[in-house]
Amino acid sequence: MKIGFIGLGIMGKPMSKNLIKAGYELVVYNKTQAKADELVELGAIRGTSPADVASQCGVIITMLPNSPQVRDVCLGEGGVIESAAEGTIVIDMSSIDPVESKAIGAKLAEKGIEMMDAPVSGGEPKAIDGTLSVMVGGTKENFDKYYDLLKAMAGSVVYVGELGSGNVAKLANQVIVATNIAAVSEALTLAVKNGADPELVYQAIRGGLAGSTVLDAKAPMMMEHNFKPGFRIELHIKDLQNALNAAHATATSLPITSQVMEIMQARKNAGCGTEEPRAIVK
Amino acid sequence: MKIGFIGLGIMGKPMSKNLIKAGYELVVYNKTQAKADELVELGAIRGTSPADVASQCGVIITMLPNSPQVRDVCLGEGGVIESAAEGTIVIDMSSIDPVESKAIGAKLAEKGIEMMDAPVSGGEPKAIDGTLSVMVGGTKENFDKYYDLLKAMAGSVVYVGELGSGNVAKLANQVIVATNIAAVSEALTLAVKNGADPELVYQAIRGGLAGSTVLDAKAPMMMEHNFKPGFRIELHIKDLQNALNAAHATATSLPITSQVMEIMQARKNAGCGTEEPRAIVK
Repeated sequence: MKIGFIGLGIMGKPMSKNLIKAGYELVVYNKTQAKADELVELGAIRGTSPADVASQCGVIITMLPNSPQVRDVCLGEGGVIESAAEGTIVIDMSSIDPVESKAIGAKLAEKGIEMMDAPVSGGEPKAIDGTLSVMVGGTKENFDKYYDLLKAMAGSVVYVGELGSGNVAKLANQVIVATNIAAVSEALTLAVKNGADPELVYQAIRGGLAGSTVLDAKAPMMMEHNFKPGFRIELHIKDLQNALNAAHATATSLPITSQVMEIMQARKNAGCGTEEPRAIVK
Repeated sequence: MKIGFIGLGIMGKPMSKNLIKAGYELVVYNKTQAKADELVELGAIRGTSPADVASQCGVIITMLPNSPQVRDVCLGEGGVIESAAEGTIVIDMSSIDPVESKAIGAKLAEKGIEMMDAPVSGGEPKAIDGTLSVMVGGTKENFDKYYDLLKAMAGSVVYVGELGSGNVAKLANQVIVATNIAAVSEALTLAVKNGADPELVYQAIRGGLAGSTVLDAKAPMMMEHNFKPGFRIELHIKDLQNALNAAHATATSLPITSQVMEIMQARKNAGCGTEEPRAIVK
């Protein structure tokens, strides 16, 4: 069975390489065709459009920047929907608005095409190592059926519920991560500005209820003013915007998330969108 | 050497009991005198005012609700300053505004009275068990000198810097705890309102960068709608207000902390001030 892989960016390229390594036969497509060259050299077949990929594959993985690109690849001109056979499944591993996941899934379902949303966390290094964390929304049957395929790119593959739930889990994750980064930034800034040694404060509080993975991962780097990017503020903005979209679609209020979003947006507008999020401590 | 202990509330009473258990001779005082009865039965001497306690003791521990009470006990009518001998030390274990710690310490210093701020975290159960975490600001010499005394009430006693730093560390801790609680509340609310199973989402994200002590401690209780108080929203409001006071005294901006404060304040105004903070998930 051939696997289609659409979207060969920073994440998609190493993920598709790991599938080839695991023995899967791939048909790959990227809007900028040159990005497919390396995979074609490794044995992948070059697709000429999403529809072309769909005409050859019963399973199509998408790894794209955001909701509009997923909608376009699935439902647009030359998209998957034009040529996919009934029973085809789209596994969207992009991080997008879950409301859009459900809407795109509903459109595909009209043609008998199934969909799972399976966004990842972990970033480029874990995409390369094949140790991503994948959060899967869709039917439990499809989760079980495609578990091994996803596991070839991941350290953990977890089922979280119906279509859209994968992205809901991812956004819940991002809400906590972004807010915890802001909390650590404010706490350390308060300490420094009020004459306390931030290193001693960090050591004093890390073992208690203030302890977090963000505190241990980011506080030492903030104190060394190490703002080497691992993630970008503009990507947090994208995720927080999707979280707020999903929240507002269900009349949910996220006052802290929206405030964190405003801070990140202000940093981006100040020309710092490509900075590491912990740089907000500045 | 007799130890004065002023403030025998929910925290002060078990803390002073642990000092008696450790063999210290105490002179105790509480504004509501009846609260001293139990300690007098255990062998403590009853003081009639802070000044009376100070006339008998070279070391005075205070455990009071907030800055105004500490100021009053130290500097007010019948206060410590009226009768304390030169070289006396006040160890303030209350959680107060660090700007006030420094100001009170400066006034006491004019009379040759020393001061340390040594606020605690851990709440009533840890006060009873003698396993509080103490964050100490003051001179390193005094930290070393009174380490054993503090350790008789605590699991950990950590030096964080000059006078005021203990409260700065405590407030940094509270900023992170309150904000992390808000983050978990918003993330779980987003998940539930958007049709994901919060338990599966929690399990999916707890091992990653979203992981925190707050997430593991509070999320399961939030999902069970267990809002049995361990801490009270109105105490968070007090700490966040002190954090904002200290921040504004040094022209520091804490936008997320202030937003969390507004949410907690709104809950209190809705008649829920004595609720557990994780109840904001409602």
